[in-house]
Amino acid sequence: MEQEISVAIFGITGYTGIELFRILSSHRSVKISSLVSFSHKGKKLSDVLPISLTYNCKDITLEGELKEKPEIAFLCTPHEYSLTEVPKLLKEGIKVIDLSGAYRIKEATLYEEYYNFMHEYKRELEEAVYGLPEIFRNDIKKARLVANPGCYPTATLLGVYPFIKGKIKFDRIIVHAISGISGAGRKPKQVFHFPEMEGNSFIYSPLKHRHIPEMEDILKRLGVDIKVRFTPSVIPISRGMIATIYLNINEKLNIKELFKETYNKEKFVKILDEPAHISWVRGTNYAFITPIYDDRTHTYIIISVIDNLGKGASMQAVQNMNIMLGFKEETGISNLPSLV
Amino acid sequence: MEQEISVAIFGITGYTGIELFRILSSHRSVKISSLVSFSHKGKKLSDVLPISLTYNCKDITLEGELKEKPEIAFLCTPHEYSLTEVPKLLKEGIKVIDLSGAYRIKEATLYEEYYNFMHEYKRELEEAVYGLPEIFRNDIKKARLVANPGCYPTATLLGVYPFIKGKIKFDRIIVHAISGISGAGRKPKQVFHFPEMEGNSFIYSPLKHRHIPEMEDILKRLGVDIKVRFTPSVIPISRGMIATIYLNINEKLNIKELFKETYNKEKFVKILDEPAHISWVRGTNYAFITPIYDDRTHTYIIISVIDNLGKGASMQAVQNMNIMLGFKEETGISNLPSLV
Amino acid sequence: MEQEISVAIFGITGYTGIELFRILSSHRSVKISSLVSFSHKGKKLSDVLPISLTYNCKDITLEGELKEKPEIAFLCTPHEYSLTEVPKLLKEGIKVIDLSGAYRIKEATLYEEYYNFMHEYKRELEEAVYGLPEIFRNDIKKARLVANPGCYPTATLLGVYPFIKGKIKFDRIIVHAISGISGAGRKPKQVFHFPEMEGNSFIYSPLKHRHIPEMEDILKRLGVDIKVRFTPSVIPISRGMIATIYLNINEKLNIKELFKETYNKEKFVKILDEPAHISWVRGTNYAFITPIYDDRTHTYIIISVIDNLGKGASMQAVQNMNIMLGFKEETGISNLPSLV
Amino acid sequence: MEQEISVAIFGITGYTGIELFRILSSHRSVKISSLVSFSHKGKKLSDVLPISLTYNCKDITLEGELKEKPEIAFLCTPHEYSLTEVPKLLKEGIKVIDLSGAYRIKEATLYEEYYNFMHEYKRELEEAVYGLPEIFRNDIKKARLVANPGCYPTATLLGVYPFIKGKIKFDRIIVHAISGISGAGRKPKQVFHFPEMEGNSFIYSPLKHRHIPEMEDILKRLGVDIKVRFTPSVIPISRGMIATIYLNINEKLNIKELFKETYNKEKFVKILDEPAHISWVRGTNYAFITPIYDDRTHTYIIISVIDNLGKGASMQAVQNMNIMLGFKEETGISNLPSLV
Repeated sequence: MEQEISVAIFGITGYTGIELFRILSSHRSVKISSLVSFSHKGKKLSDVLPISLTYNCKDITLEGELKEKPEIAFLCTPHEYSLTEVPKLLKEGIKVIDLSGAYRIKEATLYEEYYNFMHEYKRELEEAVYGLPEIFRNDIKKARLVANPGCYPTATLLGVYPFIKGKIKFDRIIVHAISGISGAGRKPKQVFHFPEMEGNSFIYSPLKHRHIPEMEDILKRLGVDIKVRFTPSVIPISRGMIATIYLNINEKLNIKELFKETYNKEKFVKILDEPAHISWVRGTNYAFITPIYDDRTHTYIIISVIDNLGKGASMQAVQNMNIMLGFKEETGISNLPSLV
Repeated sequence: MEQEISVAIFGITGYTGIELFRILSSHRSVKISSLVSFSHKGKKLSDVLPISLTYNCKDITLEGELKEKPEIAFLCTPHEYSLTEVPKLLKEGIKVIDLSGAYRIKEATLYEEYYNFMHEYKRELEEAVYGLPEIFRNDIKKARLVANPGCYPTATLLGVYPFIKGKIKFDRIIVHAISGISGAGRKPKQVFHFPEMEGNSFIYSPLKHRHIPEMEDILKRLGVDIKVRFTPSVIPISRGMIATIYLNINEKLNIKELFKETYNKEKFVKILDEPAHISWVRGTNYAFITPIYDDRTHTYIIISVIDNLGKGASMQAVQNMNIMLGFKEETGISNLPSLV
Repeated sequence: MEQEISVAIFGITGYTGIELFRILSSHRSVKISSLVSFSHKGKKLSDVLPISLTYNCKDITLEGELKEKPEIAFLCTPHEYSLTEVPKLLKEGIKVIDLSGAYRIKEATLYEEYYNFMHEYKRELEEAVYGLPEIFRNDIKKARLVANPGCYPTATLLGVYPFIKGKIKFDRIIVHAISGISGAGRKPKQVFHFPEMEGNSFIYSPLKHRHIPEMEDILKRLGVDIKVRFTPSVIPISRGMIATIYLNINEKLNIKELFKETYNKEKFVKILDEPAHISWVRGTNYAFITPIYDDRTHTYIIISVIDNLGKGASMQAVQNMNIMLGFKEETGISNLPSLV
Repeated sequence: MEQEISVAIFGITGYTGIELFRILSSHRSVKISSLVSFSHKGKKLSDVLPISLTYNCKDITLEGELKEKPEIAFLCTPHEYSLTEVPKLLKEGIKVIDLSGAYRIKEATLYEEYYNFMHEYKRELEEAVYGLPEIFRNDIKKARLVANPGCYPTATLLGVYPFIKGKIKFDRIIVHAISGISGAGRKPKQVFHFPEMEGNSFIYSPLKHRHIPEMEDILKRLGVDIKVRFTPSVIPISRGMIATIYLNINEKLNIKELFKETYNKEKFVKILDEPAHISWVRGTNYAFITPIYDDRTHTYIIISVIDNLGKGASMQAVQNMNIMLGFKEETGISNLPSLV
């Protein structure tokens, strides 16, 4: 047995925090040394987490701030909290994986427009590595601060990256996405009250969404300066996501080949001939991608399917941790999906 | 066209109020003359109701109190509000159908134990008619005040009434019921947040529920003094309910015959050989009842299926109104269910 | 009471047939004179329809062929059956509304490619009126044969028509659609078995779908010769559909105005500012349309929401019948949706 | 790393087989040496299992019969197949865990009545150990043949066993149970077609179910000769089950204490104060049990919650294997549930 590395989780009552807690609880190379919660400090774990997750644990008390220095800290906290907490943790020599959006975009001014706060931690913003291992693995290995990607950007960027890697130009991009409700957070809302969401679906924020500048920023870092047309929607499922990407490309490509080559060494990205089902990735860290060319309309269509809480959040965070700490990349996140 | 009778609805933003509004909007013999809302007074209808229900209406303003005297008023209000509002309305000569629990139980002291308020309107409590037409139709015809039954009691009492009418004694009664989530009200709660209720089900309040004294009180009025063992639970559907009733009876009965005779003139109660599906009554005022005798264990099992918002609430309220106002009993509530 | 017109329904056990039966059962101006079923002939209605739909009816026997001549016949039958039955009915002087795809496309050769049969009824094909009242109402009034539109084309064409009416050119069209499972028919399939479809969603037929030539054919009749890029998918709901249409247009438009003007006299098409929810149209004949311009990417996005079994099938069929027979257009289909 | 033991799975395309394959694929102490399928022999694994389960595996070919002798075989096969296959495997010295019902009941004649076949393998029936570890662990350790329990009996027997162990007499037992649809098997059926099961629920087989003789037989082995009144029903969830047990008992008990004592050394049975949610056990091998006494009606109510595919089938089968082979009992099945 390898020695266990100590990790802290900040923010434990939202879906990403709960999912992270569940995964790390059975990760063989780490132990959860601290749970930090500003709003629940002093409470017992069993009072803030669903009982089913806690009966096996020592009933530890949530701390208002770190008492013991961990090797690495996960922030499953609101953007504003992460904003100020990240610099403090880095200063203390603690590695950070931030699941909020506070350090994903390099261009600080966009935070005002999209997140409603001023971002004055320029140096940390500069240092932050975008935690999409299939694109930035080498940077992640050396990172002190990883900004864990949003779910829509994860699905979208994995679907677009092969074109970029292959230096294929596209001059227009539309991303139409459907997501499970967990992506909207754990706080109950009228529209997600079970009787009103059962049998329902709708498009929301059709013109402005925080994941737009995130996608555009990463594309820019990869050399593609383009505006992304993005349509998010929710469907009545708990978890899972399909991003369908429409691209105008003026070349004729062997698209299947392009995708297979790009990802042939990746454990968590699979290229399929047929569009994947959400159930095929549910509860896993996998991304299933189906690239298609429609020669009637000369359109490239990339269908990218992930679990928004898996590859789109907490499992990708663990993948990033494994890379940062030198563990085998799939440790703790290699499970297969359940069919039902 | 008959002349339209004016009705008022108090409380318009919960599920029973919304459903009542929908039904009465196309009831050919009434017009909604007032919408009364304490908490939303002064707001427009289109600001408090889902848009899909309002685009066809004149955009009327919600009143804090009645301005125009209606023939009849529906109270889709909290118990405490109905408690004090009912006497005022009666005094003004307005007929009342109260969908809350405030006037269902004759024994005033039980309100302290089960509803947490003192009930001091003895005269009105005495006068109130329990609005289960298949049992109390004659009283409803003449009533000024109808206490519209709870959903669990409606399903249960319809399932037990044939034994009472047939003077069959039973010395033990267990009611195990499953209900759609709309029965728990419209206010969002963590446990009914879509991601947590999908694929979930649970028993709640296994020892104390407000519908227990309601059932026992009505049974008592019908001459049966018995304690009801009652287990309510929720399943992930929006609307619908199954109450399964287990009875010890020492006689051998032709149970199918007993039930068919009891209800053979009833339009809304159907006796089946096989247990009904919830989808067969969804969106309707029907009750489907399957009486069974298990001779291995000498148990009578009555399976009673209704829509908790239909026969269990708003549609039964309209049935009561039709009776009180002398309309054809099925006016506005005669629709069939959709299969899907 | 107006005199009742007699109607026949061919094909009664699929979802469009069942839904049509339910609606016509309470349509005040028609009576169902015959139910015709090739595969169930001689059976009783109560043996082929869900019990909840039949207990109120006379238990009529399904006929293998028409015995009594109706004024109008609805075909809820397979394409191949409609293909040969339509000419026979017309010859007997019976008006026909065909819910299959057999008479929707003018270009007969496309049937070979998309429907796997030769279409040799050129005259009837020529005569058939496409039953989208908001576009072809005048033709429907005089029609003997109405080809009732497919669900995806209904949602799409209603979303595109204002541009055509306004003579606005677009040179590229992408339609991304999600649909409830009832659109895939009533026959059980592994992929739609409840445990496998719960929490699931997927894109299907990403390159070839029968509704593509249907959309393109109607666009062509309206003067627009364009290839439609179409992506259909299913989500775990029973009924309802959202078609999102992406258009490249080089003019600057007052798009909201354009849509409101186009549909301002239409009872069943509503133009909204925000994207509609599927629950707002569920069980109704309404189409809710939200036109949006994204000036970041210069894209027009039209979000068109209908019930695939309502405006997308059986209710639109009744709307067509009402027009053909001179009834008030909303008779029998004017109900509002249930919120839950 | 311990040495890997070879296991065979018979029947791989039903839900219990698929779930077993998923679990054993990541069980660190076994390797799947053979997949046997009568109906799919010669096909590749990737042709019969959902793709998401197979892309990580060598694409092995399904055999019509065993080629390599495994240490242990799991039968996820129809009752009739297991009936004749079990004796053959035992003869070859292979240990067997049978997930069918063919060897669960000692009284051979009951198979005629409930399973429609004659059971002539008396010796094997005699030898079979009922695979409920919390009751029969010592027998399982030494067993060559384990009859893996049905899901309803697992939930029920775990809920009743403390009374039996504590020598508490009960003279009447009613079991009311709700189950996820996976319990009805993988074969698509009309009633479980998604559009018809969404929002639906119903009681089925209210008088005769194969799990009744199974429960009564085990109770008899434990010294309790009683008829079980059993009501099974389905609700629209994929997996999970609640059995609510009503008992008449004439003593006053410290029921919580009784249950905690009975199961205090059990890893997979937890005693709770409040009724458990199905989501708390979903995807796990846990049973959550809540014993309650209602002193108004003098009724004991035991609420027993399991995952029908977990503790109710495939995970319990792995628990049995672990015991038979001397592994740590929770190996491969110690995961926590996901909240969403």
